Amino acid sequence: MTETEDEIRNRPPIEEMPESIYAEDGSVRSDFLMLVGAAIADRDLLFLRQRVARLHESELGDLIEAIQADQRIALVRLLGDDFDLTALTEVDEAIRLQIVENLPNAQIAAAIGELDSDDAVYILEDLDQADQDEILAQLPFTERVRLRRALDYPESSAGRRMQTEFVAVPPFWTVGQTIDYMRDEEDLPESFSQIFVIDPTFRLLGAVDLDRILRTKRQVKIEAIMRETNHPIPAVMDQEEAAQEFEQYDLLSAAVVDEGGRLVGVLTIDDVVDVIQEEAEEDLMRLGGVGDEELSDTVTETSRSRVPWLFVNLLTAILAASVISLFEATIEEIVALAVLMPIVAGMGGNAGSQTMTVTVRALATRNLDIHNAWRVVRREAGVGLLNGMVFGILIGLVAGLWFQDVNIGGIIATAMLINMFAAAVAGILIPILLDRLGADPAVSSAVFVTTVTDITGFFAFLGLATWWFRIGVGS
Amino acid sequence: MTETEDEIRNRPPIEEMPESIYAEDGSVRSDFLMLVGAAIADRDLLFLRQRVARLHESELGDLIEAIQADQRIALVRLLGDDFDLTALTEVDEAIRLQIVENLPNAQIAAAIGELDSDDAVYILEDLDQADQDEILAQLPFTERVRLRRALDYPESSAGRRMQTEFVAVPPFWTVGQTIDYMRDEEDLPESFSQIFVIDPTFRLLGAVDLDRILRTKRQVKIEAIMRETNHPIPAVMDQEEAAQEFEQYDLLSAAVVDEGGRLVGVLTIDDVVDVIQEEAEEDLMRLGGVGDEELSDTVTETSRSRVPWLFVNLLTAILAASVISLFEATIEEIVALAVLMPIVAGMGGNAGSQTMTVTVRALATRNLDIHNAWRVVRREAGVGLLNGMVFGILIGLVAGLWFQDVNIGGIIATAMLINMFAAAVAGILIPILLDRLGADPAVSSAVFVTTVTDITGFFAFLGLATWWFRIGVGS
Repeated sequence: MTETEDEIRNRPPIEEMPESIYAEDGSVRSDFLMLVGAAIADRDLLFLRQRVARLHESELGDLIEAIQADQRIALVRLLGDDFDLTALTEVDEAIRLQIVENLPNAQIAAAIGELDSDDAVYILEDLDQADQDEILAQLPFTERVRLRRALDYPESSAGRRMQTEFVAVPPFWTVGQTIDYMRDEEDLPESFSQIFVIDPTFRLLGAVDLDRILRTKRQVKIEAIMRETNHPIPAVMDQEEAAQEFEQYDLLSAAVVDEGGRLVGVLTIDDVVDVIQEEAEEDLMRLGGVGDEELSDTVTETSRSRVPWLFVNLLTAILAASVISLFEATIEEIVALAVLMPIVAGMGGNAGSQTMTVTVRALATRNLDIHNAWRVVRREAGVGLLNGMVFGILIGLVAGLWFQDVNIGGIIATAMLINMFAAAVAGILIPILLDRLGADPAVSSAVFVTTVTDITGFFAFLGLATWWFRIGVGS
Repeated sequence: MTETEDEIRNRPPIEEMPESIYAEDGSVRSDFLMLVGAAIADRDLLFLRQRVARLHESELGDLIEAIQADQRIALVRLLGDDFDLTALTEVDEAIRLQIVENLPNAQIAAAIGELDSDDAVYILEDLDQADQDEILAQLPFTERVRLRRALDYPESSAGRRMQTEFVAVPPFWTVGQTIDYMRDEEDLPESFSQIFVIDPTFRLLGAVDLDRILRTKRQVKIEAIMRETNHPIPAVMDQEEAAQEFEQYDLLSAAVVDEGGRLVGVLTIDDVVDVIQEEAEEDLMRLGGVGDEELSDTVTETSRSRVPWLFVNLLTAILAASVISLFEATIEEIVALAVLMPIVAGMGGNAGSQTMTVTVRALATRNLDIHNAWRVVRREAGVGLLNGMVFGILIGLVAGLWFQDVNIGGIIATAMLINMFAAAVAGILIPILLDRLGADPAVSSAVFVTTVTDITGFFAFLGLATWWFRIGVGS
């Protein structure tokens, strides 16, 4: 959210402003932390009000994350009404809960009343039902109804993220009437960049950007300058889908409507930016085999969330090991094979994960679809063959010289070529297939791709050696 | 960019609008592609103008990406002045170049004149100097100067991404004067959400949001309602840094100033969203061992960009293999070890990459800093020990039963515990260390972490076995 006018007016003049609270590396400066710590210990309200309460909400959020748990509670208690609850939308969920649970509901209710509705919902939605009800009960009627309505929409929906404050006028008003209304009305949203046009039943008719109003003569009717809102967002739409609409049509804000097409709120791009970022982050975390963990999670929470992925990997590793065990007789005879086999499997794994990363990202950004899939598959297969030849020759020379055996050099070169080709094909086809089947390719591709490259790698290398040296299979 | 008023007015009424051009999976519908293809072949200008030229720029961009290379050129030629060049900002760089290089410079110059300056720069910056000069020479003076100024700023700087059109007024104007100016002036930007306040030398004094102007009485002076712009962006600032300012302070738009503090342009959040997305994407690609490749790259381009990473991995794989070769005598005696050793190394690799993914992301989002680093390191070490015990016991039982040997079960359990602990410690410390040293942890962490887990895995497992079974080291 942008700063409120009050915040801006209350800002100290530039010469009084402390220097940046951040050190060069982006962390909060240690000397500032020490000052804050001392002020909390000394209950130095003057310092806290002047130097802490006036920080920008995101700076205050970073400060809260940097201090100790007990200091956080003390700071919020000491600041009381001077503490801007918006800062809690900028911190880790665990820290937010820790603070909110330690505050009396009456203080939260008082502070919630000051927030934009989307920030208020952001804080309220994590609380349990009883606390939510108690806090809502202490709010004025209209505000309670607004927040309740937003909270009634499903989690992660556009209705949860929207701001319920907006300016709406009837189509027959003139530009002059509209401007006069805005000059006189006290209860306007903190900031807004467009006004909406509605019929008497609140059905959305259109929107007018503020610059359009400012360039139009007073006597012109609103309906003459309004544009159709081609992309109203249904309140029940998932926030990710809403974010895609914003990206696709470069929207800055969009009307949110209920099932009846009635205007219920407005979604702005600053809320959507967070969603876009979370999305990209999710893909990264999933490819790395981690779920929705947070830095503040405990050891057991973290361990539990990572076990499933490791467990699946254990199963596939055992599968790969059983492939090796088919060739125990061969390994017993030529131990060099045991030394070299992880190279073949490992290089395949790396090549496969390169292809897979590109594919998963292209699918997520919708750059890869049926129109170019075949071309990209051919390209990846070509890259696999080419790199397979390059690294096959390289490792063939190294292995041949190392073990002074041209046969081993030839065998590992061939196995490397086969495995890197398999890696490329698996790296592109597996994510595409998972995507077609409706699964998230970021979550599940990696384990399938490594399984393919491990098994192909061991099988090709040990199998070729067994065949070449004419050794019986089975221990 | 948002639609211009003209575009909106020229939009066909809803009932004439074709259905969405997208199929359920987000790709452009095949039947629509066929219609477009036929219209291009038949030179059916009516269809192309009505159904293609009126598409939203991002839809047009998707369409261009979906059709054949020769169809693209033909389409742009056929549409001529009706082709909205903004669509080219929505396509892959290779496709943009392909189209622009096939258009006469005169047509580009005519079309560039219609674009917002930031879109124009986006298209011009990829062209070579001679073409740039030729196109700029055909533009009116003020526009040429503006674009030239933006192009003179370094690549990827805020100056390149900014829009050079803005509204600026002196501080002593009243709200009424300002509104009258906007009503009368023809040459205003397409859309804007704030006006800037400058002194006679163009030095930036402040800004006023449009909603603030609309709620203020006509006789009030601009200087009374302007707010200080606390975060003007220097034009030479890197776009990533500018994006961080936007994220940190939830800005929607920001003034861009030159070295003298003079206003030269405005940077808006829709440009910044693209930068934020590119950033997150870069981390993902780097962790996956791929560089800045594009889906339209050729086989050799792709292969060449992936070889360096694979080469480094080959070296570390050879290093790990040489650890195995220390224990050839042991493997010769107990082949089961060769079967099982990839499990120990592989599980370590997976656990390490989990920790590394979380760490790299936390560093990128500045959530991990000196204030919580020690706590997170302890947590990861704890997770490594805990998961090491879980999976040590599990694989110990499996291996013991498989090879009917309690010794092997005990050895692999211990090696697994050691390696998963090492993986956790390497997974957190290596990215932090690289970050401190000024290297990008996303690029280089993976190879170091796998090296640690491979070497530790093989050494711990084979070493323990050698010691336990009292076998001599060295082949």
